Order: sequence, then structure tokens, then C-alpha cells
Amino acid sequence: MLKKTAKLLVTSSLILGIAATASSAADRVYKWKLATTWGPTLSPFIDAPQNMSKMVEEMSDGRLQIRVDASNKHKSALGIFDMVKGGQYDMGHSASYYWKGKDINTLPFTTMPFGMTTNEQYAWFYYGGGMELMQKAYKKHKVLSFPGGNTGNQMGGWFRKEINSVADLEGLKMRIPGFAGEVMAKLGLTVTNIASGELYTALERGTIDALEWVGPGMDINMGFHKIAPFYYTGWHEPATELQFLVNERKFNKLPKDLQQILVTAMRVSAYDMYIQNYHMSANAWDKMGAEYPNIKVKTFPKEVMDAMKKANDELLVEMKAKNPLLKEVLDSQAEYQRKARKWTEMSDYLFLKDNL
Amino acid sequence: MLKKTAKLLVTSSLILGIAATASSAADRVYKWKLATTWGPTLSPFIDAPQNMSKMVEEMSDGRLQIRVDASNKHKSALGIFDMVKGGQYDMGHSASYYWKGKDINTLPFTTMPFGMTTNEQYAWFYYGGGMELMQKAYKKHKVLSFPGGNTGNQMGGWFRKEINSVADLEGLKMRIPGFAGEVMAKLGLTVTNIASGELYTALERGTIDALEWVGPGMDINMGFHKIAPFYYTGWHEPATELQFLVNERKFNKLPKDLQQILVTAMRVSAYDMYIQNYHMSANAWDKMGAEYPNIKVKTFPKEVMDAMKKANDELLVEMKAKNPLLKEVLDSQAEYQRKARKWTEMSDYLFLKDNL
Repeated sequence: MLKKTAKLLVTSSLILGIAATASSAADRVYKWKLATTWGPTLSPFIDAPQNMSKMVEEMSDGRLQIRVDASNKHKSALGIFDMVKGGQYDMGHSASYYWKGKDINTLPFTTMPFGMTTNEQYAWFYYGGGMELMQKAYKKHKVLSFPGGNTGNQMGGWFRKEINSVADLEGLKMRIPGFAGEVMAKLGLTVTNIASGELYTALERGTIDALEWVGPGMDINMGFHKIAPFYYTGWHEPATELQFLVNERKFNKLPKDLQQILVTAMRVSAYDMYIQNYHMSANAWDKMGAEYPNIKVKTFPKEVMDAMKKANDELLVEMKAKNPLLKEVLDSQAEYQRKARKWTEMSDYLFLKDNL
Repeated sequence: MLKKTAKLLVTSSLILGIAATASSAADRVYKWKLATTWGPTLSPFIDAPQNMSKMVEEMSDGRLQIRVDASNKHKSALGIFDMVKGGQYDMGHSASYYWKGKDINTLPFTTMPFGMTTNEQYAWFYYGGGMELMQKAYKKHKVLSFPGGNTGNQMGGWFRKEINSVADLEGLKMRIPGFAGEVMAKLGLTVTNIASGELYTALERGTIDALEWVGPGMDINMGFHKIAPFYYTGWHEPATELQFLVNERKFNKLPKDLQQILVTAMRVSAYDMYIQNYHMSANAWDKMGAEYPNIKVKTFPKEVMDAMKKANDELLVEMKAKNPLLKEVLDSQAEYQRKARKWTEMSDYLFLKDNL
């Protein structure tokens, strides 16, 4: 509809001799491309950018169109940051902690072991200074970063045998990537990475003893519950927030109303993905638990948890000493968590304690 | 900017003899009014409609403008439903359970005692059939209802003395409105309603023995913590969701893009208010607890909780027997809560248990 208006206006403006600057800016159609880390069917991760794109197109009446390319299209699942920075893509959808090798300061904007829960972390992002710190970390790369959807508290993983002590962990082979993998390595595990398509077979054959994935909603399609009966609760990713990346120069070229439409659509699709995954996990666990009543949900014993915390703290101390901005962000998170956790305890935690 | 375009187009269309129907629909400015239950400074409740209005105006480049009238303007805090239904206001911002006297089926779309937490309830609304049931309940009134912001788990209230048994509750005078008040009345309390401006004095002088308000973020300005040292955790409003109301006929007259802009802005401002109140409560409790270390956070003893649950269940059984749609909604909520609560336990609850 607006494209038609634009054409009419250009024609008539030429005839009337009226400058059409204002209207051409408002009516121009922007065609953008977004690259995601995820495959085309990896729900709910892929739904967040797709829902965002649909909302943007509807709200802008087609003036901003964002094509979402899944990883099978661009063949560079972990090249999102570089492609958005370089301008090959206008936008990306991925996770900030994937870029820690390029810039350690991007690490803490996804989730941290023993860190904030999802609600606490959103409060930190939007009202506790987190967004400002995230833009500060990304500024030198000339990309903008926004929350992109949360998985909620991730499960600690599927284990073939029960873990009763730190000694039980030593020598185990586990697929657990990223910073949590470094913590586990300090506890004596052999940490490996294996392509997702080969994980089931590796776990079934005992090539690995344990693996960490996401939570019931996404784990159910992988089938791990059929072969590893111990499902440990989470400690390492209490609030994994995905990420929208936007090329700063491209963003600045959008008219103000389209900028606002884009920012709002990213924000609501991020919140929505959290709620969608809550729903998926509730349903998946209900089904899994009913079909495989032998699955045991376990919490790591205190001795193990304490050892993980100690290893985690030691790694953080080293990293903070070397990186002032990382220290600033982690200190901000720790102070926010201290305050927010008390409220979490008084509100949902104590309510749940009597209502499980 | 678009208003200017519209004028240009009308002028040039007349000259060119081209029908401008499409463009005039897209460029027309809609001026709407919204009435809220809240006073002009009652943060964060008043922030939700104000943020929504601002987002709508920016995203639509001024084509949809929504004036927010606080209760001091329209003088009818609890007349929102009628004013939106009657068309005096295009929109409202209030809470669904205020209309239970007009239509009992509107009761369960705010929160229910011992019901779902905020995340569980959002999952039910958006992915578990809740939105469809809410529209079903509101359909005959020709108004549309949308989530309008969540307070999170509300505290059980401020008490002048400690509650150790059901006997301690009998004869107490408490300000606790709505359905929770009916539950408390069954336990032998004298339930009263007192205007908010008179609550502090009533509690200080012992005219009442206890009162329920919201949570630290909103309670702190009321000063109750200075005069009632027992702060009980919540049971009666685990996820109080406010409400946007929209006159259906007015909504249907908006162009599709403005409908989408409005719906998206309501959705994100609702989520945001939950996170904003999380932040406010975390900060307020940190301050309150530091300045008044004598405040004791207490959970009602099991005997009291069981009696409340029993009274609650009895009231629900009576209500469901008389109202088929209410039964349908409450049954849907109960079944959803059963599934979602297991996931809540495995994820955040067990994580928090080790990380308080």
C-alpha cells in the first residue's frame, strides 16, 4: 500500500515541482537480511528471528522486510558476528558467548554459571544497567547487540551413571561446550565437542559418558532420555539469552519509526521465546516423564556443587584481573544478583516451596 | 512526516485525478483515549499504558496517538470496563478481576490463589490456550482483553503480630480485597476495605491488624514497614496480571499495520512492567531490609496454609458448579499448572535451592 503511495507521490511531486524528501524517506522499502546460527527447524531458537521479521513487516506495512537465512543457507553458523560486522548481513541471531575467542568482553551477556535467573537477568539488562554495558562492549565492533530470547534455566545434562562425589566425575568424557566446559575440565573431566548429529550414537556407545544440551523442550527430539537415565538439574546456564546483532551503520540509516519498530519487535520476540520454551519444556517433560518413568531427575550433591563453584570462581578471578571491562560487567552482575536474589527468594521461591 | 505526505498526496491526487483511497487509509491520524484505574504517579502500573502509548506513537510515526487519562482525570477508577464497552474511551488499563461482580467469568484472568507463577501464566496465556479463553469470556461485551503487565508474586501482607496458627487469625481485622478476601473471611477474619490514603493510619492505630498491598517495590512508599514488623510471603496472588481493554469496534476500524503496532506495544509493555517491578522490588527490599532490620519475613505455617487452601478449594467448587465457562477456564489453568509446575521445579526452583 505504501509502495503505491510512494510511486504516486514521486510522479505527482515531479509534476508539481514539490520536493518529496520527507515522504520518500518514509515510504522507501528497506530489504534486509538476517543470518542465524540455527538450522531451519531448530525451534524455538529459529522462531525468535522469524517472529521478529514477521512483526516488523506487518507493523511497517512492508516498508522493512527482513529475510531470515538459517545456517544451511549461509553455511557459517559461527560466522554471524563477522558477517554482521562486515556488512554482508544487516542483522544476525546467535549468542554473545560464542564470540569470547574474538573478544572476551562479549562473554557475560548470555549467562554465567551460578548467575542470575532469567527474570533477574532481564531486570539487570533493562533496568539495572546491563544494556548500557552490553553496548559498551560491542561499540568498538560497530555492531549493536540486543537480547534475542531466553532458554530459561538449562539442565545440567544427561548422565549414564549417577554422580555421588567429585571422584565420580574424574575421567568422565562429557560434551559440554564453552565456559562451563572449562569449569568441568578443572574438575577432571575430559571435555569434548561432538557434532550434534553424532551425539546420540556417541552417548549410546559410551564414546562419551554424559552430555549437556538445553532442557526438555529441545532435548526430547534428540532422544537422550532413552539411553541415559540420570537427568541432572542446572548450574552452568541459569538464563541463556540469545542475541540479535545489528550492523550499526545500517541501523542508523533507518528512519526513526522503523528503528523503533525493529527494536520493539526484537524485544518482544525475545521475551516470547522464553515463554515459548517454558511451554515446550513443560509439555516435553510431561511426555518424557510419562513414557520413561525410569528417568531420574537429580541434583548434583553439595560436594560436587561446591567444587564447581570453586573452579568457576577461580576462572573468573583470573579473567577479571586481565580485563577491566569484563570485571566491570561481572561486578555489576554480582551486585545486581545479590539484591535481586533476595526478592526472588521472598517471592517465587518461598511460594513454590509450599506449592510443588 | 506522514501527515505531510497525506496532504501532498491529496493535493496532487486532485490535480491528477487519481483516487487516493489506499493512501488516505494509511495516512489518516487516529486519536485515541485510554482510561486507567491508577493515579498519575502509581509506578509501575501507570508506566505500562504510558510506555505502550509512547511506543505506538513512535512506531506509527504519529498515525496512532493514545492519550492516557489517569484516575484523577476521569474520576472513575473502577469504571474502566463500562467506559471502554460504552465507547467513551477507546481503551482501558485495569485488572480483569475487578469485573467479577459484572461477569464472574472475568475473574480468573488476573491471578488465582495458589495458582500459576508469572512465567507459567504467560506460557498459558500465549501458548496454552489462555488468550483464546480470555477472548471467549469478553466476546459478549464486545471488548478485547490483553495482558497488561504483571506484578509478580505479591506478598501476603503486613501483620502487626506473628501468626502461628489458624486461631491467631480469627477475629483479626484485615484489609484484603477481592477473592482472597473471601478466602480470609472463611478463616474467621473480619475483612474490610479502606481507602489507600487512610491505610497507614488505620494500621498504626490498630483499626486494622493487617493489610495486603503488593510487594516491596510498591509497598515502600506506603511506609507499612515502619509500623508492622511481620511481612508474610504470598499465597493469594502469585502472578497478578493487569489488563489492556480495547473497544472491539474501534479496533476493527484501525488499518492492519496499526492493529499490529498496537498489539505488539501492549504485549511488550506488559512483559516490561513485570521486569520493571522485579527491579523495583529488589531495590526496595534491599533498602527496607537495611534500614529496618527488625522486619521479619515469614511464611504462614503449614496449618494456616492448609486451611487457606481448603477454603479456597471450597469456594472454587461452588463457583465452578454455577458457571460452565468459569469451570472451563479454571480446569484449563489447573491442568496447565500441573505440567508447568514440574518444569518450574526442575529448572529455577532446584537451582535456587542451592543458590540462595
